[in-house]
Amino acid sequence: MADRNRRMVLAERPTGMVDASTVRMEETDLPQPGEGEALARVRYISIDPTIRTWMDDAPGYLPPIAIDELIRSGGIAEIVQSNSEDYKPGELVFGFTGWQDYVIASQASGYQALPEGVPPTLALSLFGITGMTAYFGLLDVGRVQEGDVVVVSGAAGATGSTVGQLAKIKDAGKVIGIAGGPEKCKHLVDDLGFDEAIDYKNENVSARLREAAPEGIDLYFDNVGGEILDACLAQLALRGRIVLCGAIASYNDRGGAKGIANTSNLIVKRARMEGFLILDYFDRLPAAREEMAVWLGEGKIKSSEHIVEGLEHAPDALNLLFTGGNTGKVIVQV
Amino acid sequence: MADRNRRMVLAERPTGMVDASTVRMEETDLPQPGEGEALARVRYISIDPTIRTWMDDAPGYLPPIAIDELIRSGGIAEIVQSNSEDYKPGELVFGFTGWQDYVIASQASGYQALPEGVPPTLALSLFGITGMTAYFGLLDVGRVQEGDVVVVSGAAGATGSTVGQLAKIKDAGKVIGIAGGPEKCKHLVDDLGFDEAIDYKNENVSARLREAAPEGIDLYFDNVGGEILDACLAQLALRGRIVLCGAIASYNDRGGAKGIANTSNLIVKRARMEGFLILDYFDRLPAAREEMAVWLGEGKIKSSEHIVEGLEHAPDALNLLFTGGNTGKVIVQV
Repeated sequence: MADRNRRMVLAERPTGMVDASTVRMEETDLPQPGEGEALARVRYISIDPTIRTWMDDAPGYLPPIAIDELIRSGGIAEIVQSNSEDYKPGELVFGFTGWQDYVIASQASGYQALPEGVPPTLALSLFGITGMTAYFGLLDVGRVQEGDVVVVSGAAGATGSTVGQLAKIKDAGKVIGIAGGPEKCKHLVDDLGFDEAIDYKNENVSARLREAAPEGIDLYFDNVGGEILDACLAQLALRGRIVLCGAIASYNDRGGAKGIANTSNLIVKRARMEGFLILDYFDRLPAAREEMAVWLGEGKIKSSEHIVEGLEHAPDALNLLFTGGNTGKVIVQV
Repeated sequence: MADRNRRMVLAERPTGMVDASTVRMEETDLPQPGEGEALARVRYISIDPTIRTWMDDAPGYLPPIAIDELIRSGGIAEIVQSNSEDYKPGELVFGFTGWQDYVIASQASGYQALPEGVPPTLALSLFGITGMTAYFGLLDVGRVQEGDVVVVSGAAGATGSTVGQLAKIKDAGKVIGIAGGPEKCKHLVDDLGFDEAIDYKNENVSARLREAAPEGIDLYFDNVGGEILDACLAQLALRGRIVLCGAIASYNDRGGAKGIANTSNLIVKRARMEGFLILDYFDRLPAAREEMAVWLGEGKIKSSEHIVEGLEHAPDALNLLFTGGNTGKVIVQV
């Protein structure tokens, strides 16, 4: 066991992408677990777009990360020393580990054992926040129906790739993914069973949507916001639904992005656009995970992960989400 | 009875406001009612923002008005000659009269008798499309709750003024109207019982919303779109609801308007934005009108009308909606 804890703190609020001056690596003594607590070694860190939003000094669903404060993130840690009956050495737990080597786990801070038999990277992807976000966004907020024409953006990403596969499981009529580059598009259709893919880097999204969804989009699962959201608004079907999950296009570019022009199409189409956060579904996660495990067992759903090695590369891993450098869930292996 | 029918047709599609070259007055022989039909003299024409959208060559919930075609609108007409048992001379009926002196009424074209005891102008306002739009938009789409902080734009208009009063009837915690000019604002508070009014022509709407709704907006009923919609998006409360009813700010200015920047606040606030059309509620109008009649009888709701005399002034009457020259329902008395 190392006797020091490395932790990455917010040195400076980024204006665009995260760079060398955004974060600072610090070393401290190992934290000491108190009564009812355990010391755990962080093994995997979940890299999610929302981390970037926490770096801004803007109101959100959680407070911004303060300057000099640990970068917040979910993760999986292995118990190394325990003063609690809830945690045994060698056991894997997940919670808000942050970007560091060691963490104090306790019931009060929400650390839970991994679901039985679930490998750690799957616990962060399909069974983690991203997979669960796909599940509740598509089923609960979007109320996907048999026969629906479903469009999902950020389709090669962790959440988007799950949304498309779940839509197929739920008998959507057609599932169209929007992703950047021919390789990702090929992956969606060949590996994940999407019916069609639109390459936003090389194709005209509006024109391709009119072609691929001539009768309109019944359900659009939005991970990006911006121009792609606008194009989908324009192509909505009667009683269409837009699930707002993320707005990655604007996280690095607040205020600079062109606004949305087609909101009034929601009137003509009697359509609904609704945002949600997985935070509100925590009490329903166990049931959703059980269902996900069945589909996984039946080979109906796949997870892909993009593993980045080394805590020190967490900032680069985060940037991958915005450059589109990843396919699947980005995870830092510490 | 005059022996000629004056009718206003679309001469040219307007690019902004309707002007002298947009419409053309024509004279034709009186239409002759066939079997099961009646000839009716148009008495009142309902002037609604949606008429302007029908003048554009753009897809909508109804087809655009064709060039040389009669301007479409709702209205009330008096039966003057009848070949139908459904209509008696002297009786008032309503339907899509259009901008003309005479119309052929039939069951096939949807002409119905006015609700018992309802004066004709009220039949077009509180009991007409505008009042019913307020009713279903607020209650059904917006699901107004006791204690809600409700904001309505176009608040001195026909629909907006009804929304505010209905919100008070439904025990909203605070009702804030947005209107243009100090007189309209005074009218909202003094005459219609709004709790507060914001004058968008002379005040900073965003700043005033933060002041008037410091805990956020639970329900925003949007009649205007554009910058005011964006300001309300920014000030939404958790689980806020935005009812999209109209986007009058953009009807004369397609493409020119600045886009909406704050849609991603729908995610942070787990909020919903939904459009609707009263067309979808036609089967429920009778029950809603009964309820409206009770509130009217109890003095809980008032209707104000802005009457313009003369068919030839219908285009000016339509423009009033966009210059904000009206308070209440605009009706042309033919």
